Amino acid sequence: MAETSVSPTPLLKDELDIVIPTIRNLDFLEMWRPFFQPYHLIIVQDGDPSKVIKVPEGFDYELYNRNDINRILGPKASCISFKDSACRCFGYMVSKKKYIFTIDDDCFVAKDPSGKEINALEQHIKNLLTPSTPFFFNTLYDPYREGADFVRGYPFSLREGVPTAVSHGLWLNIPDYDAPTQLVKPRERNTRFVDAVLTIPKGTLFPMCGMNLAFNRELIGPAMYFGLMGDGQPIGRYDDMWAGWCMKVICDHLELGVKTGLPYIWHSKASNPFVNLKKEYKGIYWQEELIPFFQAATLTEECTTVQKCYIELSKQVRAKLGKVDDYFIKLADAMLTWIEAWDELNQAEGDSTELPNGAKK
Amino acid sequence: MAETSVSPTPLLKDELDIVIPTIRNLDFLEMWRPFFQPYHLIIVQDGDPSKVIKVPEGFDYELYNRNDINRILGPKASCISFKDSACRCFGYMVSKKKYIFTIDDDCFVAKDPSGKEINALEQHIKNLLTPSTPFFFNTLYDPYREGADFVRGYPFSLREGVPTAVSHGLWLNIPDYDAPTQLVKPRERNTRFVDAVLTIPKGTLFPMCGMNLAFNRELIGPAMYFGLMGDGQPIGRYDDMWAGWCMKVICDHLELGVKTGLPYIWHSKASNPFVNLKKEYKGIYWQEELIPFFQAATLTEECTTVQKCYIELSKQVRAKLGKVDDYFIKLADAMLTWIEAWDELNQAEGDSTELPNGAKK
Repeated sequence: MAETSVSPTPLLKDELDIVIPTIRNLDFLEMWRPFFQPYHLIIVQDGDPSKVIKVPEGFDYELYNRNDINRILGPKASCISFKDSACRCFGYMVSKKKYIFTIDDDCFVAKDPSGKEINALEQHIKNLLTPSTPFFFNTLYDPYREGADFVRGYPFSLREGVPTAVSHGLWLNIPDYDAPTQLVKPRERNTRFVDAVLTIPKGTLFPMCGMNLAFNRELIGPAMYFGLMGDGQPIGRYDDMWAGWCMKVICDHLELGVKTGLPYIWHSKASNPFVNLKKEYKGIYWQEELIPFFQAATLTEECTTVQKCYIELSKQVRAKLGKVDDYFIKLADAMLTWIEAWDELNQAEGDSTELPNGAKK
Repeated sequence: MAETSVSPTPLLKDELDIVIPTIRNLDFLEMWRPFFQPYHLIIVQDGDPSKVIKVPEGFDYELYNRNDINRILGPKASCISFKDSACRCFGYMVSKKKYIFTIDDDCFVAKDPSGKEINALEQHIKNLLTPSTPFFFNTLYDPYREGADFVRGYPFSLREGVPTAVSHGLWLNIPDYDAPTQLVKPRERNTRFVDAVLTIPKGTLFPMCGMNLAFNRELIGPAMYFGLMGDGQPIGRYDDMWAGWCMKVICDHLELGVKTGLPYIWHSKASNPFVNLKKEYKGIYWQEELIPFFQAATLTEECTTVQKCYIELSKQVRAKLGKVDDYFIKLADAMLTWIEAWDELNQAEGDSTELPNGAKK
């Protein structure tokens, strides 16, 4: 049962921000209007800050361009990528809400097999508000979904689950392939609607895509750093992957859940595979060392908060991945800068004082 | 794309046995005729051996009752459960084929959402003949399926996958719930067709149900022991679970894959929850100790074959679970007996000499 109707009262209306990184006018919001209009948007404008981004009438939003980021973060702005959608994580940092949904501006409303429009945000919220089950796999998938439950043989002590930190949604039409696969299979489209949500088991890594993603900012926000990509950096298109690997190691340590599956969005256009190849090629071979690194990474008992975990992870990145390439030393530094900036803007936990940011509205 | 058509040439016709445990006439085979008739059946008759089980005309089968099992295994027959569908594993032992598909006699042909009948066996064979990906999760599920692939961020070095040992299929209509859940949700039916096959990640345990299950007997056969259940034993309904946990630990050690998801069968009737509760209740609390045991179980480098792994695991069962209940000491012994019996009947690997079994035909 993919949820497709618009709730009369939008769920978590005052507790969720929608973060959109973009370089263009946000006409794509027209299609999302019935679903997104009740929510607050945080738009992170990438590239030339003098360009004016048009936002359709009636949406409640704040918009940050590079000048805003520089003014708000000062020297710490160096941790926010430029000319890359990795800049979206700035939006996570300035949000004051408990939940974040982030979506790319080439993603449209998908339809379920019955032809009904999918309210992606509503499904993400359901995913986030129900527990995860990372310690044991349930063969009927999400046991908290209507019409499903834990199957025979599922330990009763594990049926309460753990809080869900992340909901990773999928894409119909253009699949999220790397450049080599795009080149080899230029015409492949994802047409398979898999009606499932499942918890990624503890100890298992996955490729987290930032196109259609929601998370509990209070639980995991500081780990959602999208790294150094784009302008002046040796790689791109690994921003969400980096965040996903760091986040998963930390969620496993803190016993938080990560779900993947529903909801689908309609991914409208494939990016240029030649451009992508140039961005990705270093990542493609570095990744062969990154995955074993993250699979082996462990955090000590002292790491009791996301910030502490992230700082500890940055040290391990420096010590172990610094040998792979100097880039990872720069990245380890940026990870620390990110945490400093996060803490500066988010002060005491639960503190709701106004940020001194003066963002345009 | 659930496969629903009957292949002109049945896949693996001479390399797969269908194992069916039963206490009644096998009328259910009529519905499976288009799919099963080309294959050889091994019927394991449970309960009263004097009862005559009728098998519909035209099926090629061998049938073993308790007298046959006792004659073939002698004193080692003690490892084969009586009055419990766990007896099915005798069929795995006497098979001489590379692949096994086992199904319960209350399972019928299910239909996919388009209304087409699902050829469950064909889907299992596809699952078994394509690799598994236990080391990293692919968010578009089975990357080897038509129309799918590995997504961006999936390490290229892991894309060859590993051989698949087990294909675990699911059930529409009556879900495989334990007695407490049956009692609480007597009317719940599984109506959700999830069009996915996925690899259970390395290090993750799951509840393996024996109702609709296929495996590569050469790769994992000796680990598919369904334990001591039923007559004279303190528990029932944990036969397939036990096999699943042992098998998964061994597959993880030997780097073999386990898949779950498609195909669905139609599970026609719920077993009696009161009877089930009596069979299960000890398992329900023992399980709370079994799962941590299996999660922590490791096998040494010397364990290079399934048999060696299984013998090592039986020692750990005796040493660690023996403290939970004496039953596990008996079970550890039976695990060793099972391996002895397996090796006796299966002699040298790949040996295809006739078994001295004299089973009825």
